[in-house]
Amino acid sequence: MRNIRLLIEYDGSRYDGWQRLGKSSGSSTIQGRIEAVASRMVGAPVEIIGSGRTDAGVHAYGQVANFHAETDLSCEAIRDYFNRYLPEDIGIREVYEAKPRFHSRLNAVSKKYLYRIVTGNAPCVFDRRYVCRCPEELDTAAMERAAAYLVGRHDFKAFSSVKRSKKSTVRELYRVDIFREHGELRLMFCGNGFLYHMVRIMSGTLMEVGMGKRKPEEIPQILAGRDRTRAGVTAPPQGLFLYEVSYEPDAL
Amino acid sequence: MRNIRLLIEYDGSRYDGWQRLGKSSGSSTIQGRIEAVASRMVGAPVEIIGSGRTDAGVHAYGQVANFHAETDLSCEAIRDYFNRYLPEDIGIREVYEAKPRFHSRLNAVSKKYLYRIVTGNAPCVFDRRYVCRCPEELDTAAMERAAAYLVGRHDFKAFSSVKRSKKSTVRELYRVDIFREHGELRLMFCGNGFLYHMVRIMSGTLMEVGMGKRKPEEIPQILAGRDRTRAGVTAPPQGLFLYEVSYEPDAL
Repeated sequence: MRNIRLLIEYDGSRYDGWQRLGKSSGSSTIQGRIEAVASRMVGAPVEIIGSGRTDAGVHAYGQVANFHAETDLSCEAIRDYFNRYLPEDIGIREVYEAKPRFHSRLNAVSKKYLYRIVTGNAPCVFDRRYVCRCPEELDTAAMERAAAYLVGRHDFKAFSSVKRSKKSTVRELYRVDIFREHGELRLMFCGNGFLYHMVRIMSGTLMEVGMGKRKPEEIPQILAGRDRTRAGVTAPPQGLFLYEVSYEPDAL
Repeated sequence: MRNIRLLIEYDGSRYDGWQRLGKSSGSSTIQGRIEAVASRMVGAPVEIIGSGRTDAGVHAYGQVANFHAETDLSCEAIRDYFNRYLPEDIGIREVYEAKPRFHSRLNAVSKKYLYRIVTGNAPCVFDRRYVCRCPEELDTAAMERAAAYLVGRHDFKAFSSVKRSKKSTVRELYRVDIFREHGELRLMFCGNGFLYHMVRIMSGTLMEVGMGKRKPEEIPQILAGRDRTRAGVTAPPQGLFLYEVSYEPDAL
């Protein structure tokens, strides 16, 4: 059995997220669509292992996944097969031969998520499905001060929609970069892992800081309270992109 | 009566082109949609005059239009009103007060059209509605030699879908720039005016040159023949953008 690693981009607009639920065909999920094409390609059922889930409506530039299969196809032929049969809103950027024990989720050491915001009233015709609109201008200096409190190793329970669970809600956020690019405000989050809705709640909270509705100095108390209701809104999914997943070179 | 000039961008994917036909409400045309909002805004029927038509599925970064109306609204308030009530795939970038006699079509002195091509098999998820896919790599040096024959004042009848007409088919093409940007091949055409389908037929013909199906040296004969069947295919609409319309500064 070969182990094949995929670098995937997708427009999540019309999907119920990455993850197929149970044994259903999952045609409304990105995982389900890729599995259907992979199974047809190799003539046997294939399970695609993603680096992590993305929610309904969230996009990816750089999702990573792997699958085990017996096939004689070259990596290039696998890529071409996928891109011929996948819908146009899911694309396979690269295909690599992986080590037999490589696992997209378990071996991931860090991830980057990008949140794209367009402020003001200017139209945004061509990127309208890929940004969050914010009519007010945002105070990026205040947002940067707030983001600095989020960086580090913390219990991020207040910034997640995780229900009662015995699993740890401690994560390390390595950095948050806030920058203007192509007329947009972009937030790039890099960390060792993210809880359910964590990037969207951090983005929503930082936007509230940018609008002056909250002070940057509230962030430490919100973290300490571990109470979801004290953090900001969950920003909408269409501005969010899974941007990059990193692995130890040895794992690949 | 004031004369208001608009700078407009739109995603033409779901429209039957710019021009409303006859007196119909034209909700499937971009002109019709803008007229409906303008009429509601000023409380009287408004006719929007565009710099020219775009075909079904063709986009615009910089369409120009004007309309006459009595209203006390500021240019900024007019822009905000349009952007609040227009669909998300039509946006008003700027609103200006124009001279009483300014006419978007009659005063236009030159136009730029952009044609976007993605070559090879790489996926193109986020721009899929805005580019023409070409599986083969293109010989841009040959395309540039062919484009050089198109530049100048010529009878472009062979490069148009104009049926029998007494109107002149002579136009002046000022320049064609062929360049790679953002991983795409882009063709920028600048001229004093363009015939029906002219940019798409020039783009299709240049792509055939790039694929080696035609020689650059054929272009002069094609022009001289004035026969549509001797030029290349009409490239698909979704790669085409009306990029910019220019006016004499005095006219504005």
